[in-house]
Amino acid sequence: MTLTVALIAPGSMGAAVGRYLRDHGLDVCTTLAGRSVATRERAAAAGLREVEQEQLGEADILLSIVPPSEALPLAQELAPLLGRMKKTVYVDCNAIAPATVEQVGQTLTDAGCAFVDAAIFGTPPSPERTCPSFYASGEHAARFAQLNDYGLPVKVLEAPIGAASGLKMSYAGITKGLTGLIAAMVQAAERSGSGQALRDELKCSQPMLYEWANEKLPDMYPKAYRWVAEMEEIAAFAQKDRPSEALYLAMAQLYWRLAENRAAGAGNDVAELEKWLAR
Amino acid sequence: MTLTVALIAPGSMGAAVGRYLRDHGLDVCTTLAGRSVATRERAAAAGLREVEQEQLGEADILLSIVPPSEALPLAQELAPLLGRMKKTVYVDCNAIAPATVEQVGQTLTDAGCAFVDAAIFGTPPSPERTCPSFYASGEHAARFAQLNDYGLPVKVLEAPIGAASGLKMSYAGITKGLTGLIAAMVQAAERSGSGQALRDELKCSQPMLYEWANEKLPDMYPKAYRWVAEMEEIAAFAQKDRPSEALYLAMAQLYWRLAENRAAGAGNDVAELEKWLAR
Repeated sequence: MTLTVALIAPGSMGAAVGRYLRDHGLDVCTTLAGRSVATRERAAAAGLREVEQEQLGEADILLSIVPPSEALPLAQELAPLLGRMKKTVYVDCNAIAPATVEQVGQTLTDAGCAFVDAAIFGTPPSPERTCPSFYASGEHAARFAQLNDYGLPVKVLEAPIGAASGLKMSYAGITKGLTGLIAAMVQAAERSGSGQALRDELKCSQPMLYEWANEKLPDMYPKAYRWVAEMEEIAAFAQKDRPSEALYLAMAQLYWRLAENRAAGAGNDVAELEKWLAR
Repeated sequence: MTLTVALIAPGSMGAAVGRYLRDHGLDVCTTLAGRSVATRERAAAAGLREVEQEQLGEADILLSIVPPSEALPLAQELAPLLGRMKKTVYVDCNAIAPATVEQVGQTLTDAGCAFVDAAIFGTPPSPERTCPSFYASGEHAARFAQLNDYGLPVKVLEAPIGAASGLKMSYAGITKGLTGLIAAMVQAAERSGSGQALRDELKCSQPMLYEWANEKLPDMYPKAYRWVAEMEEIAAFAQKDRPSEALYLAMAQLYWRLAENRAAGAGNDVAELEKWLAR
């Protein structure tokens, strides 16, 4: 019997995962009521079957791939329906702090619905790219891991709800944090007249950081706005450790400044980075 | 004619640099009045010639290699003497913010003494290790660069006072900052049950960050206390950029917590890092 996977909501990652699962023989459905034309077109291009919200409870596995702020509201909206049907396992794939994931999980568990904490590592799958990895934790993780049989790389962590999200947070805190540190120091170096020397010294004594800077800085500008919320989630994740919380709140501010600066076209901050990269 | 180099004060870096210069044929002197037995022994082992403070003005080049907090007081103490003699070029080699370096430089320039901003990259020279690099900026940098003829690698930046220190700050802000980010996220991951997964994922998808963590975390514990002041200098360096200042002040707090924790033997923070490294 073919599994049915429901996907909420088909943004660029969601639609690409949906298409990938459909190409691997699964029945993939989504809801589109009230969604934009762009979303409808993305869903159609991915070959996703449109269903009414009431039919979501017929899916075996529901994947929530939404902006961080929508993760909890979506769970609250769907919990009564899914809890009544008791067929679906709800998988939250979003980049949210473990404490937020626990709230999402509690909402579904209280309603009687099985819940899995998951995190996505990598870029959307496409014919040219490999599929990103999914990590999953919580007692029902094995139900989500059935998708391994359909080509989706799901790694189960033998750990409770919160572990998959904690992994996502800590990994992003290091990688996206490093990009933020480089941006901050490149800007300061350019202002102090040592931009060229920093570039030469990194190239010579820290080639891997030099490459990181060249590759990740230009890739970051258009994502800076999205990373603000992610850094805030990481701050919440690190909250038991006061200096770490302050550190990631400052990182969120740094990305906010870069994003605003770029949107305004004033571009002091971005211009300093571009000047440095062009040296 | 052999150049005379004065070294203030012979700590582990200063004494090793002194010995290196002496081995390369220079006359190297230092003052030892009021210094500890350990410092006297280090100076003797390095073969440094002891002089009275009044004789420092006879040196061609004076290197200040002191803890960050002593950089300005030392300049204030020596400026009148060196300004009277007008023979010595004063080279500040300390890890201090460009704004602090400018104060140091102004103190000496006002007194009539030539000044160079410098920064040291690397560990103390020894028979087993190569000599660290010195960067120098400011109009008198070429006088310090004469030491290239005696084997000391001095790179002149065609930039004003502040550039060499800015380079040191921005480089340390990236490298020591990265170690801090990893420490913060490893601690949070261990608390959320995702420590092992973070280790596996880094090893697989970011091998260079995995190696950095394994090499730099254990190396950092004993230095954490010293890095507090360095992170505060970097915050001052980044001050025109508000989020960066807050970021490095938080980083200073993070290293402070690690250092205190280790000194108290309670070791929660360090224990989390060690547990993770041993996985």
